[in-house]
Amino acid sequence: MFTFKAFYNENKNQISFKKTEEELPKLNSKDLLVKIEAVSLNPVDFKVASGLLNKPNDQKTLGWDASGIVVKVGSEVKNFKIGDHVYYAGAIDRPGSNSEYQVVDERIVGQKPKSLTFKEAAALPLTAITAYEALFTQLQISKNISDKPKKVLLVGAAGGVGSIAIQLLKSLTSSIVIATASRKESEDWVKSLGADYVINHNNDFLKELNRIGFQDVDYIFCINGLESHFENMANSIKTFGKIVTIDDPVNPLNMMLLKMKSVSFSWEFMFTHSLYQTEDMISQHKLLNEVSQLVDLNKIKTTIGLDLGIMNEVNLEKSHELLKTQKTIGKIVLGVNE
Amino acid sequence: MFTFKAFYNENKNQISFKKTEEELPKLNSKDLLVKIEAVSLNPVDFKVASGLLNKPNDQKTLGWDASGIVVKVGSEVKNFKIGDHVYYAGAIDRPGSNSEYQVVDERIVGQKPKSLTFKEAAALPLTAITAYEALFTQLQISKNISDKPKKVLLVGAAGGVGSIAIQLLKSLTSSIVIATASRKESEDWVKSLGADYVINHNNDFLKELNRIGFQDVDYIFCINGLESHFENMANSIKTFGKIVTIDDPVNPLNMMLLKMKSVSFSWEFMFTHSLYQTEDMISQHKLLNEVSQLVDLNKIKTTIGLDLGIMNEVNLEKSHELLKTQKTIGKIVLGVNE
Repeated sequence: MFTFKAFYNENKNQISFKKTEEELPKLNSKDLLVKIEAVSLNPVDFKVASGLLNKPNDQKTLGWDASGIVVKVGSEVKNFKIGDHVYYAGAIDRPGSNSEYQVVDERIVGQKPKSLTFKEAAALPLTAITAYEALFTQLQISKNISDKPKKVLLVGAAGGVGSIAIQLLKSLTSSIVIATASRKESEDWVKSLGADYVINHNNDFLKELNRIGFQDVDYIFCINGLESHFENMANSIKTFGKIVTIDDPVNPLNMMLLKMKSVSFSWEFMFTHSLYQTEDMISQHKLLNEVSQLVDLNKIKTTIGLDLGIMNEVNLEKSHELLKTQKTIGKIVLGVNE
Repeated sequence: MFTFKAFYNENKNQISFKKTEEELPKLNSKDLLVKIEAVSLNPVDFKVASGLLNKPNDQKTLGWDASGIVVKVGSEVKNFKIGDHVYYAGAIDRPGSNSEYQVVDERIVGQKPKSLTFKEAAALPLTAITAYEALFTQLQISKNISDKPKKVLLVGAAGGVGSIAIQLLKSLTSSIVIATASRKESEDWVKSLGADYVINHNNDFLKELNRIGFQDVDYIFCINGLESHFENMANSIKTFGKIVTIDDPVNPLNMMLLKMKSVSFSWEFMFTHSLYQTEDMISQHKLLNEVSQLVDLNKIKTTIGLDLGIMNEVNLEKSHELLKTQKTIGKIVLGVNE
């Protein structure tokens, strides 16, 4: 099979890719072998290439978002059969999806939404899992839509994770969704996905909230800019409020800013389940199936921002350069056969 | 009425007290006027004197733990009447309990346990509220005693808050309680209160846990030493585990240590309710009444460590010098009339 190996250049802080031939991977008992049809790109690809798992400069197959067709199943597989159309993010400590074929544990794989193309489906898994776990496992926002509405602030909402978070909140909860955006283009995008209000994250958060009639928010999901927005978030969160983040702050955080209001702070890292093989790893299989249903019921739209065509060295590099600008809207996808 | 005003000497980092006469305080509509019978001392007294609320060097009546008798009630008081025996911690932004009389909002006052003396009762409120909220509001430990036991690590368990936390866990939950202590005296104390295991917080936490047969813990309540134990806690907490603290770290914290395991970190600050007049402020009234019942049912013991006799300038100063050593076991109490 072919696979794209990534090479990280520390001086240029860039990744380059090289197409190579490899043998088909071996399956563990709970694994599926998937023929990949489409992939999507995420900031985590770059983080892994540059040393997230303490292995900088390793040549490695990146890519943690794919859709494809099951072509082989391990001896203990219960939820899938050959021919199933699936979508998944995969495990960060195993080879990624920038490949012709990939092995993946069935407990972190979902049935692909029937109403979507492979490319449209590939845009969803990593961001859907991340947003879902951040909102419902970490922030513990109620999924009872008759509950009294709570205010949820999404910091940096126009990217892939924010795009799905807005939709999950509007379709599964009674939340008032306040998205931050700083450009007209991203403001329009988050509104089109259902955000009730948009504030500018370059201004003082509390003043921006006052402008739209609020004194505070119950929950904050900080998707990026954690360090620069930390004081702003501390000022605008309610007593006993909850903050969750997926960002990678470079410096230690002044957590004392959250003490007087008894605020909680939590991490969402979607690879925790697979990396530590947690007992409830199968929750991600269920979550992806639930998202599939929501998509097929027209309650959630795919979040493709840019289709760059075929997966090759040039387009992979181009995608990562775009992601580094942190200004991409929605997801970048690539197809295997097109 | 008499009251003890505190004076903070920044050079010596010491508090001194001076007995003065004042007029009886005015009551708001939800206030009780309480004739104080006994008080207990807490580290927060010193923090307020030295500037917690951004007012260093103010002369101020400290003391946030008292038991006494209701002698007057505000126009809207619903839960108490003149003559009731009560116990409470009070509000940090109002004068404290080192006084002959004190006003306190009924929503943060409980009926004193009938089976305890005023001194025994005065030892409980601040630590009971703190421990209860840390364990059940912040860590969200299940109070269903038939639930599968979870491992709870109490870091610095021999002080006032730890002493009550151990007992709440053993009487209301199925938890396995692992307390840290470093001296024989404190080890014996925490065992006498019901701790299942004791580990030494001067050693590597994970090695200590391995020694008693555990690989990790589900919850950590860090009562002191947050900064010095932070890496140890990150290494020993389970995936998706929760950490709560009441400490006051001087430096920012390296929160990234908690990311790979998707761990949550929260603050417990018992004065949040009264300081921000939260909607659910009355939860502390209910909580104190529940603790009263547990005491009267013999499920929780008072946690007096030292009875220093009468409340006067000398004994108040002596109490605070002892608290500063961070080696006191249980609570220090003083009586008004003895």
